[in-house]
Amino acid sequence: MKVKYELVDECDKARYGILHTNHGDFETPMFMPVGTQATVKTLSPEELKDMKSAIILSNTYHLWLRPGEDIVNKAGGLHKFMNYDGPILTDSGGFQVFSLAKNKKKDIVEEGVLFKSHLDGKKLFLTPELSIQIQNKLDSDIAMSFDECPPASASYEYLKNSIERTLRWAKRGKDVHSNKNQSLFGIIQGGPHEDLRKYSAIETVKMDFDGYSIGGVANDGESKDDMYKAIDYSIPYIPKDKPRYLMGVGDPVDIIEGVIRGIDMFDCVLPTRLARHGNAFTHNGKINIKNAKYKEDFTPIESTCDCYTCKHYTKAYIRHLITSDETFGARLLSIHNIRFLIKLTEELRVAIKEKNIYEYREKFLQNYLGDKYDKNIKG
Amino acid sequence: MKVKYELVDECDKARYGILHTNHGDFETPMFMPVGTQATVKTLSPEELKDMKSAIILSNTYHLWLRPGEDIVNKAGGLHKFMNYDGPILTDSGGFQVFSLAKNKKKDIVEEGVLFKSHLDGKKLFLTPELSIQIQNKLDSDIAMSFDECPPASASYEYLKNSIERTLRWAKRGKDVHSNKNQSLFGIIQGGPHEDLRKYSAIETVKMDFDGYSIGGVANDGESKDDMYKAIDYSIPYIPKDKPRYLMGVGDPVDIIEGVIRGIDMFDCVLPTRLARHGNAFTHNGKINIKNAKYKEDFTPIESTCDCYTCKHYTKAYIRHLITSDETFGARLLSIHNIRFLIKLTEELRVAIKEKNIYEYREKFLQNYLGDKYDKNIKG
Repeated sequence: MKVKYELVDECDKARYGILHTNHGDFETPMFMPVGTQATVKTLSPEELKDMKSAIILSNTYHLWLRPGEDIVNKAGGLHKFMNYDGPILTDSGGFQVFSLAKNKKKDIVEEGVLFKSHLDGKKLFLTPELSIQIQNKLDSDIAMSFDECPPASASYEYLKNSIERTLRWAKRGKDVHSNKNQSLFGIIQGGPHEDLRKYSAIETVKMDFDGYSIGGVANDGESKDDMYKAIDYSIPYIPKDKPRYLMGVGDPVDIIEGVIRGIDMFDCVLPTRLARHGNAFTHNGKINIKNAKYKEDFTPIESTCDCYTCKHYTKAYIRHLITSDETFGARLLSIHNIRFLIKLTEELRVAIKEKNIYEYREKFLQNYLGDKYDKNIKG
Repeated sequence: MKVKYELVDECDKARYGILHTNHGDFETPMFMPVGTQATVKTLSPEELKDMKSAIILSNTYHLWLRPGEDIVNKAGGLHKFMNYDGPILTDSGGFQVFSLAKNKKKDIVEEGVLFKSHLDGKKLFLTPELSIQIQNKLDSDIAMSFDECPPASASYEYLKNSIERTLRWAKRGKDVHSNKNQSLFGIIQGGPHEDLRKYSAIETVKMDFDGYSIGGVANDGESKDDMYKAIDYSIPYIPKDKPRYLMGVGDPVDIIEGVIRGIDMFDCVLPTRLARHGNAFTHNGKINIKNAKYKEDFTPIESTCDCYTCKHYTKAYIRHLITSDETFGARLLSIHNIRFLIKLTEELRVAIKEKNIYEYREKFLQNYLGDKYDKNIKG
């Protein structure tokens, strides 16, 4: 079965819906934790369920290199391999090729991308067909088309040619996609340019994918303004009965702005990466637990938070773990940070149902940004 | 309340008993996982309970340095600090001073030991009184006396003087021990020498501790033969109504040999350290999961094992995690390895009750040592 999006309620452009998948249904908007190497760093599947995480993302590029898609396939697919029975989305490897290739060097040709492994420098050649074939074998619920991810600094001319190639690559990938239980999403590119986003969206939608994502918003150097433009210029052309996924975005403010603009799904390594560096989300902004002021702070990160970490552990203890290089500290902060983003999407769903999403945004931003908040400057 | 040992059954010298503590009772023989820095590496308290771990050890030396005993005390003691409501034993710091001191240099004087921190090289001076005062503040259920841990290579003359000093240190520590809810164990030293062990045991027992441990058996260079001698020469002088703890021992064969000789409690970093390096205990000996032969092995580490890891994950997946530096791999192997040792003590308890401990040993060693097993050569 392909995924099916059910629109339940709207508040202006924001959507509250349900995505039906082969591994269970979940409500949107939803944040997807990232399990790059078939594991959300430090966490068990049971912990992900406890924090109401409903779908995870895993990286095709990493699994292609290790352990290899054939081993995952022999295990019975990614769900069985990693003991996770919820929905899984795999990316195409496109972003990793552009961001992780050794020395960031790659040779983009019509056939695909030639680059060197970030692990051992081995020459690799990834094509749209190969990306889809790998994902078919991984047997994720949702596969992504292989796209080019140009840098934020790319010129209009470059982007114009790039979106044409990405369309050709999307078609080639779709033509070889053969896993009937796996959905395939198309990716809209075009930088911050209205005409390019419109063209990319219309042409991608013509190919009739099971869902659509907006790419090219999470590269180094992208401005928030460019991100909001990318969404605003793409969304009008995506059919309402298909899910919309903003790739690589996990900042709480961006999730709110994305939802307000009509996005249903988000993913980002941010909550787990921040955790490993001792950072925690709070409603009053991010804190770094290594700060000396938490040495004798025997209160939870947030007393109002319902996560396992906040119910059982103090800042002083987590600070001790992080400063002592104990991975249980990263585990506790990952639980809190992921739960923070999931809870944010839960609250956004309520705000959509109660038709007060702008009030929710105002209140959240006032607390989260504090002095930096300027209610006249919204994304 | 001080701990209270209840002898339930015996099989030759092996004892099946119950240790009553302020944080619950548990059956012995028992293996204690090590939570050096107020966390059993990678694991949650709930996971420890799931694997029927009944008591953990934490390290006074490490907690003294980070976060400091005053912070733990202000948190309400070690149980509250780390959210663990089962019994906790703290060591004295003696072993760490001798094994972890920067460049292994230390200056042993009658007053205590002068050495440099393994973290920052700062000069530190640990005395028997300070060790007990730190442990009083940590508020563990069981504190250990501060002893000298001479190397395996120490001469008879050195050991003779050393056990005298350890006795004086034990007395000084006992004199300042002031936590009425905390038990205090004495430590028997004396290397592999019958007369020294006898003397150390008799003089330590005269001081009337709440339990007794046998030390100096887990230094680098100790032979198994020396360990068995140390136990055999000490045990006859320890009163039967007190628990007996063999320090730093966690090899399955040593646990069996220790139990047969009358030991009730064991601790070791071995199961978690092995896990981090990809090693797993099995009834047919240790395996290293990184071995290429496990690449496509979609069976659990041991199909007969009842641990979370073996119920849900394959060798191929754990191998992928370990070779990809994912800490979830260390977590899964730690769960299996600790459960393996706890299960071993459960089986030893049954063997004691059923009076077939020697048959159990024979069967276990035949499987565990394989070709290396020689039934005529027992420890």
